[in-house]
Amino acid sequence: MDDDIYRIRLKKPLKKNVLNFLSSLRDDLWIAEEDIIGTEVHNIMLYEQGILNKNEIKKILISLENIKQKLLNNKLELDENFEDIHPFIEKCVIDEMGIENGGKIHTGRSRNDQVSLDIRLKIRNELNYLSTNLFDLFEVFQNLAKKTILNFIPLYTHLQKAQLGVFAHFLNNYCAQILRSLDRIDEIYKRININPLGACAIGGTSININRQRTTALLGFFNIIENSIDAISSKDYILETLMCLSIIAVQLSRIAEDLLLWSSKEFNFVEIDDQFCSVSSVMPQKKNPDTIELVRSRTSKILSAFNTASIIVKTTQTGYLRDFQDLKPLIRDSFDQLHSILEIYIDLFSTIKINSEQMQKSIHDSYILALDLAEFLVNEYNIPFRNAHKIVAELVRESKYPQDMFNKESIERLILKIENKEIKLPENFVESFKDLNTVLKNRISQGSPSKIEVEKLIRSLKENKTQSLNRFTKRVKKIEEAKIYRESLIKKLIS
Amino acid sequence: MDDDIYRIRLKKPLKKNVLNFLSSLRDDLWIAEEDIIGTEVHNIMLYEQGILNKNEIKKILISLENIKQKLLNNKLELDENFEDIHPFIEKCVIDEMGIENGGKIHTGRSRNDQVSLDIRLKIRNELNYLSTNLFDLFEVFQNLAKKTILNFIPLYTHLQKAQLGVFAHFLNNYCAQILRSLDRIDEIYKRININPLGACAIGGTSININRQRTTALLGFFNIIENSIDAISSKDYILETLMCLSIIAVQLSRIAEDLLLWSSKEFNFVEIDDQFCSVSSVMPQKKNPDTIELVRSRTSKILSAFNTASIIVKTTQTGYLRDFQDLKPLIRDSFDQLHSILEIYIDLFSTIKINSEQMQKSIHDSYILALDLAEFLVNEYNIPFRNAHKIVAELVRESKYPQDMFNKESIERLILKIENKEIKLPENFVESFKDLNTVLKNRISQGSPSKIEVEKLIRSLKENKTQSLNRFTKRVKKIEEAKIYRESLIKKLIS
Amino acid sequence: MDDDIYRIRLKKPLKKNVLNFLSSLRDDLWIAEEDIIGTEVHNIMLYEQGILNKNEIKKILISLENIKQKLLNNKLELDENFEDIHPFIEKCVIDEMGIENGGKIHTGRSRNDQVSLDIRLKIRNELNYLSTNLFDLFEVFQNLAKKTILNFIPLYTHLQKAQLGVFAHFLNNYCAQILRSLDRIDEIYKRININPLGACAIGGTSININRQRTTALLGFFNIIENSIDAISSKDYILETLMCLSIIAVQLSRIAEDLLLWSSKEFNFVEIDDQFCSVSSVMPQKKNPDTIELVRSRTSKILSAFNTASIIVKTTQTGYLRDFQDLKPLIRDSFDQLHSILEIYIDLFSTIKINSEQMQKSIHDSYILALDLAEFLVNEYNIPFRNAHKIVAELVRESKYPQDMFNKESIERLILKIENKEIKLPENFVESFKDLNTVLKNRISQGSPSKIEVEKLIRSLKENKTQSLNRFTKRVKKIEEAKIYRESLIKKLIS
Amino acid sequence: MDDDIYRIRLKKPLKKNVLNFLSSLRDDLWIAEEDIIGTEVHNIMLYEQGILNKNEIKKILISLENIKQKLLNNKLELDENFEDIHPFIEKCVIDEMGIENGGKIHTGRSRNDQVSLDIRLKIRNELNYLSTNLFDLFEVFQNLAKKTILNFIPLYTHLQKAQLGVFAHFLNNYCAQILRSLDRIDEIYKRININPLGACAIGGTSININRQRTTALLGFFNIIENSIDAISSKDYILETLMCLSIIAVQLSRIAEDLLLWSSKEFNFVEIDDQFCSVSSVMPQKKNPDTIELVRSRTSKILSAFNTASIIVKTTQTGYLRDFQDLKPLIRDSFDQLHSILEIYIDLFSTIKINSEQMQKSIHDSYILALDLAEFLVNEYNIPFRNAHKIVAELVRESKYPQDMFNKESIERLILKIENKEIKLPENFVESFKDLNTVLKNRISQGSPSKIEVEKLIRSLKENKTQSLNRFTKRVKKIEEAKIYRESLIKKLIS
Repeated sequence: MDDDIYRIRLKKPLKKNVLNFLSSLRDDLWIAEEDIIGTEVHNIMLYEQGILNKNEIKKILISLENIKQKLLNNKLELDENFEDIHPFIEKCVIDEMGIENGGKIHTGRSRNDQVSLDIRLKIRNELNYLSTNLFDLFEVFQNLAKKTILNFIPLYTHLQKAQLGVFAHFLNNYCAQILRSLDRIDEIYKRININPLGACAIGGTSININRQRTTALLGFFNIIENSIDAISSKDYILETLMCLSIIAVQLSRIAEDLLLWSSKEFNFVEIDDQFCSVSSVMPQKKNPDTIELVRSRTSKILSAFNTASIIVKTTQTGYLRDFQDLKPLIRDSFDQLHSILEIYIDLFSTIKINSEQMQKSIHDSYILALDLAEFLVNEYNIPFRNAHKIVAELVRESKYPQDMFNKESIERLILKIENKEIKLPENFVESFKDLNTVLKNRISQGSPSKIEVEKLIRSLKENKTQSLNRFTKRVKKIEEAKIYRESLIKKLIS
Repeated sequence: MDDDIYRIRLKKPLKKNVLNFLSSLRDDLWIAEEDIIGTEVHNIMLYEQGILNKNEIKKILISLENIKQKLLNNKLELDENFEDIHPFIEKCVIDEMGIENGGKIHTGRSRNDQVSLDIRLKIRNELNYLSTNLFDLFEVFQNLAKKTILNFIPLYTHLQKAQLGVFAHFLNNYCAQILRSLDRIDEIYKRININPLGACAIGGTSININRQRTTALLGFFNIIENSIDAISSKDYILETLMCLSIIAVQLSRIAEDLLLWSSKEFNFVEIDDQFCSVSSVMPQKKNPDTIELVRSRTSKILSAFNTASIIVKTTQTGYLRDFQDLKPLIRDSFDQLHSILEIYIDLFSTIKINSEQMQKSIHDSYILALDLAEFLVNEYNIPFRNAHKIVAELVRESKYPQDMFNKESIERLILKIENKEIKLPENFVESFKDLNTVLKNRISQGSPSKIEVEKLIRSLKENKTQSLNRFTKRVKKIEEAKIYRESLIKKLIS
Repeated sequence: MDDDIYRIRLKKPLKKNVLNFLSSLRDDLWIAEEDIIGTEVHNIMLYEQGILNKNEIKKILISLENIKQKLLNNKLELDENFEDIHPFIEKCVIDEMGIENGGKIHTGRSRNDQVSLDIRLKIRNELNYLSTNLFDLFEVFQNLAKKTILNFIPLYTHLQKAQLGVFAHFLNNYCAQILRSLDRIDEIYKRININPLGACAIGGTSININRQRTTALLGFFNIIENSIDAISSKDYILETLMCLSIIAVQLSRIAEDLLLWSSKEFNFVEIDDQFCSVSSVMPQKKNPDTIELVRSRTSKILSAFNTASIIVKTTQTGYLRDFQDLKPLIRDSFDQLHSILEIYIDLFSTIKINSEQMQKSIHDSYILALDLAEFLVNEYNIPFRNAHKIVAELVRESKYPQDMFNKESIERLILKIENKEIKLPENFVESFKDLNTVLKNRISQGSPSKIEVEKLIRSLKENKTQSLNRFTKRVKKIEEAKIYRESLIKKLIS
Repeated sequence: MDDDIYRIRLKKPLKKNVLNFLSSLRDDLWIAEEDIIGTEVHNIMLYEQGILNKNEIKKILISLENIKQKLLNNKLELDENFEDIHPFIEKCVIDEMGIENGGKIHTGRSRNDQVSLDIRLKIRNELNYLSTNLFDLFEVFQNLAKKTILNFIPLYTHLQKAQLGVFAHFLNNYCAQILRSLDRIDEIYKRININPLGACAIGGTSININRQRTTALLGFFNIIENSIDAISSKDYILETLMCLSIIAVQLSRIAEDLLLWSSKEFNFVEIDDQFCSVSSVMPQKKNPDTIELVRSRTSKILSAFNTASIIVKTTQTGYLRDFQDLKPLIRDSFDQLHSILEIYIDLFSTIKINSEQMQKSIHDSYILALDLAEFLVNEYNIPFRNAHKIVAELVRESKYPQDMFNKESIERLILKIENKEIKLPENFVESFKDLNTVLKNRISQGSPSKIEVEKLIRSLKENKTQSLNRFTKRVKKIEEAKIYRESLIKKLIS
């Protein structure tokens, strides 16, 4: 392969199938724009350090801008003889402007720091995009929550009806999780948005580069200082995948909720036709395929972390080619999460809540048993353990749920267990018939009572605003660097 | 089972083998102390809210303190008929003081919020202990780093010699990773050190509890508000395991380094006998078994996250018994990391560095090839791509490493490739013979040059101090709550 | 540590915490009996080869039998100073009979082949025990199947009702899976039940051992020949864990079925109280905790394979200490499967099938839609794609399930879509009202029709018999070797 | 979407992004040929059963053959509006020949049995292809083994030199593993090569199909009888991935061997340039990137099993869309293994063995220590434990390896430890100087002695022949079915 600008020391080219096996060229398209930007910035710095002259930087930037335009217009034709995008782009520049000038663009850096730079630039963009989607889903949930503060729903433990709740309470629970995920993104972002460029192969360089300058031009917070650490450490990738994994688990649990709720047996919600598939033979079917695939796709994200951690764990300190296979794991995980979030945003905007069915499910149950036991505690100072026993025996001897509220049975069991004669007011049952009253009595902080749900909606809003502010700052820093960089390039080119 | 204080509604006890299958009683010893403390605090709050009277709280606290003492003295005899620690302790209290008073200790809470409380209390302690060990290992590395600033070592990429470095540079790389792990711990700590107590089963309670008060008494930062979220969300467990996983990967890579370095073929370090095993048959063997087991134990930690995420992923919103199996995953992962860190602290305090062998390895190699290429760039403005080509051809035609510095060969190849006649100074080779000079020329920030290594040692120290301050604050908050709590208990008991 | 009989070459003993980290002594109890048996057999062979004399073998066997008795009576006191069981037992023998004779028991073998022998002996027993449990569960399912050939149940796809079936059909499906698992066990058994003893450390021995003789004495099929392969290859462990993983997945899916069916919303089955837990606060709760834990425990089994494969994958050819951590993974996975199978055997023996509820679920649905479409195909030669369309439109315009069978609507839609005027017989709907008739019409092989279900029950029985025969043969081979071995020992001792 | 031939019951089409999320259309190309063949066979059977007439089957087959040709010539244009390949092909047929005839091709089957059929057809082909590659690699190893029976190499345990061996012994170890993998393939093949077609959606069909006929036409061994089992069980996929995982682990360990051996420090082998990469900056580098990527790619295969098992584990009995995501896991795992095997075949055909370096490594070591200890056992009846101790002390007091053979030292230590005066023959050391003699003395079965290595080469050959015979039979059965099927199609078309 005459084209190979790196492969001087070896006598034979790669075998064709070996090249295919090694090549990340197509996968690298994911970071191609970042790669060009990184090369531009590196060379601007080289120029400012006196390593390139004015003419050289001009020609180099023109060439790179040209390649970038082709890329963005989907007109960049890849040459499959290259193992990856980095020599391919270097070769493009050299072909265009000759080796005397083009042969200088890789001065004082290596593929090792270059690829880490590209991935960090890419991840930070993806994290910001992910944040946007999370904020949007948060809003969809909150809009629905505000409308369902009084929509009763059974809360389950062990897939069995546990306590009375409201739908808004469920959604607030989802939102609290989203906010924590946004916090996590913000935290790892600090460790991702730092500059590895200049670590070179692994031990730095004797070329007079300026790492602080490329840091500023790319909107990084700082540099990753130690050259070995910059090249060898992959914790930034692992923590990215972990962060995505937690979001994946959260989204998958929402899918499990939906799948159950949309079964005919539960029938708590109806998912819009736009998200459902049909059967090739069973004419009656409306299947929640989208929801099912959320489960399998999120399983892949968990395994992406598993794969990545096996890959990294095995390597000694240094750079190893194994790391190449981390890239598609990150890309696919982000892609899947973006898709799922965008679908959820639409799905929860169009979902139909079957309040009647939920109420029916509540009435067919002993779901107020704990409320009744606590009533005995609050009103008659019965030790909770005995109140629990009284109601448990009530349930055991009841044929129908309403039997649990039989005044005589309760009094009889109090006598039996507490050895006390207590007379319940005739109308005590009223407070249990009205579900609003039941919830109103749940006075503990964070309960599904109207007052608490409304309070939580307000505090979620507040926390979201703070989170959004941090996010906006992050985006702004990138934007400002971009504007400055582009104006600089314009000036240097002209 | 007459003893069963919860199992009223069902007609039959658990089958014996089912009980064994379900039971977490032994595993729960891990959180038994936390469980008792949580119960004490919950009941103090009940007393302050007027739900218990002075006599009741006194008796309850005496009983709980009594049980705690037995536990701490390894004298608590578990009754295998209990499914878990929570009813066992409640039963102990009831047995001691009767149902009228003892039957009140579980008022306004549930096992669901209780176990989450216990685990959060435990994790925060474990994270603090882990931090201590990480700080200690950091110090050991730094002490060694300060002594090895001039110990040359080949830096590897692809397990092939890449660039010249120093041992201290390696160690600084480890330290930078430790600091990021300490940052991560500090971040997740914020989300772990919040109070779930009061969420009750899943939907709060109509008992007039005070969640802010238990929060203060336990030294939590805040409450986890939404009752569903408090019970159902397990992201705090997943992110704990993730945080541990990243540390595991870092420690495993150190093990990979050690394993290679301590092989006779590399022979860069010698691990003290105290960490090595022998063979039952081969008399000559000294095997780094400890290091090998670090690799397998850390694999278990990675899989602990995998298991935990599968378990959580599958569950609908709510509480499910599946969560019980998360506990041993967390416990074992912490235990393994504590062990490994304590071993590394000793191991790196006693390790022998074979500087001579490292130097020999450097001299037997073409490791200065990039330095030579950059010399041609810096001195003769040869485009890097051609400089790379010149040196590559030099390497290809060399029989021995020193041939690479043959003046005539270099000049001939410059002429061939650059078409320029350049005369190198007679003594140019001197600067490559002295490795100190070679590194001194590596002027880029974060390189292994003496000046940069020393700078990094200083900045690592500074960052460690900041990290330590945050850690100290965390510990202090727990300590203060403990002192206050204990004085309160003393008062209420007396 | 004076006791250390291997640690001669090193100058310092292991640090205490290092010893704890390294030690597998407690875990090794799992293979202690196998270890002693293996040592007995090895020494009998040494005697027969003339390496031990009559007196020596006698004393050695007496000592080993003695230790075995202590072990089986739980009276073997472990000395925590030993890293593992192998030197501990060797030391016990030496202490009892002196070094001159006792010092010979490890001649011509190494811990490496010894531990592989122990694990293979243990796994084959565990596989046989697992098979017994699988056969038992198979029988429980078949007994229930024979009683539920006419118990209608909706079959689900996508958690939505798909086609009419019967409960026996479900159970036969479980049984077919069990038979395949039994086949798999039988296959891997062939590769496990082979003898590694004599491979020594990794390169064989110059002692005149006889590998065929130990093979015969232990009931192995054959030897694992190549000494590196015998020591280094762990595929037998990986395939054991894989085999267990597949069973785990099958059992977990049964748990998912049960969990859904036992929810109040489905209410298809009722699990006996003996398998259910209650709530500490909600008096009404009867929770299927056992089933939930099946899900989490089986997740651990999957991760056990993941851990094991990471551990093995990383190792170069040879023996590495990492392998030690494979043992508990195998042990725990077997233990969990044994427990789950034993619980399922009881649980499905006592489960209550709610046939009425299943029938109700069928009648509330469009589950016969495909049967109707196929009726149109069979009777009127309507292309299936159009028949599907006709019934789909019927469903779409129906208010209640029975509307789908409206004669006029069907005729109208046939006319619309097929452009044919077809008159359905007045009584055509009868055949759909009788579910027996509907299933009788499902004439394809393997369908849930009575005739097919009965046929499958017969063929399952036949396959089970064949499987059982293979199993019995395996067990017999072990038994015979045991009887021969024990009589030999008796003779040599006396 | 007017084109949608299934989606009648729903009122709205899928949203565009939902369609993208759901679509497996591109992935399905992997099974497109199998899908067409399956459809052909199904329709031939329908014709033979009288459900299609002569004209219909003719037109259907012409259309399907036409589509198949387009597919094989890469001229099939996919319509992105379809969710998957199955309706797309059905629509192609209908578009070509009208609904009256084309609308019949899906009679008596469903996508559920259809896709399982396709995947089983595909897996069996892939398994056969995999077998071919394994047989080829086996041959390469054997050819090399025959040439390296006397090439000495140190065998390692714990990455430390353990015992003397030969390179052929290593390769035979690899070959033994390959043979077991081929056995495993043959075993799972029996469970994969069975016919699910006719299970329909999940509960069979009332169309008069003939499952035995399609079984014969496709060369299956048998049918998978129970219709639920045929649709719902995915153990055939899990065991395929497991089988691939074990091969992956084996290949990855070979990579670990190569990586170590090709490091400059070991320098045991040299990998041909065709498999190595270079550095963008370090001119001297020749990196074994191919080998490194084997490690990461095989990690992905392990995780593929993890993902698949999580996906399947979570599903209740039935068909769920989650299963769709299993397909790419299988495909990618096969693809990676094919690539790696093909590369290994070439790589080991061109690898250079550095015998001198291996010999040097042996001479620089105490690797004959066990041989010496066994010499003392064999010649002087010294108990092995004492012989081990004597040599261990020798090693401890030796400065250089040859000191271990100092006659006086040995005699002195025998006296000290055994309290016996023994005189070694003057020339005893000769037998240790000649490595051939050392190995000749290793008389145990399966050792690296010449005689044993040659014996193993013969037995490996024999086992391979048997394995190859089984393989050939499998392939023949498929071939015969194909020939018969194609002649039948020809006849029906003409």
